[in-house]
Amino acid sequence: MTIEKAVGQELRFWRTKKGLSQEKLGFEADLHRTHISLIERGLRSPTISTTIRLCAALEIAPDDLLKHVMQQIAGKRK
Amino acid sequence: MTIEKAVGQELRFWRTKKGLSQEKLGFEADLHRTHISLIERGLRSPTISTTIRLCAALEIAPDDLLKHVMQQIAGKRK
Repeated sequence: MTIEKAVGQELRFWRTKKGLSQEKLGFEADLHRTHISLIERGLRSPTISTTIRLCAALEIAPDDLLKHVMQQIAGKRK
Repeated sequence: MTIEKAVGQELRFWRTKKGLSQEKLGFEADLHRTHISLIERGLRSPTISTTIRLCAALEIAPDDLLKHVMQQIAGKRK
């Protein structure tokens, strides 16, 4: 599993859990829906700033997100 | 304090603590020295991938780094 894939999966998990569409999350985090789509599919690596803005909009702690990402990479490396 | 400034300060703190030059860290993390310089000065926001590579080279946990960054932003916002 790549870092990008793990970050994307984690963000998508939280977005759907919160019942937000990519459009709505994009509005909240001031990002275009297509940018969010690329990130969620692991096709773009978000910057730290973008990640923190997304986490704020999703009401999750950025360091928790990264912790889960690191666990995913360590445990399920392909 | 901006996110970029906080990330840069934190990375510089750990690099100097480990006694690494920007050149040496760049070699370890496969990044150009000037890229590291821009990140440390808060002039560029690293991607998640770049941050994790830098943390690996510095032997620190990426989620700890982000936790310190969030504390800095929360406590010392200018």
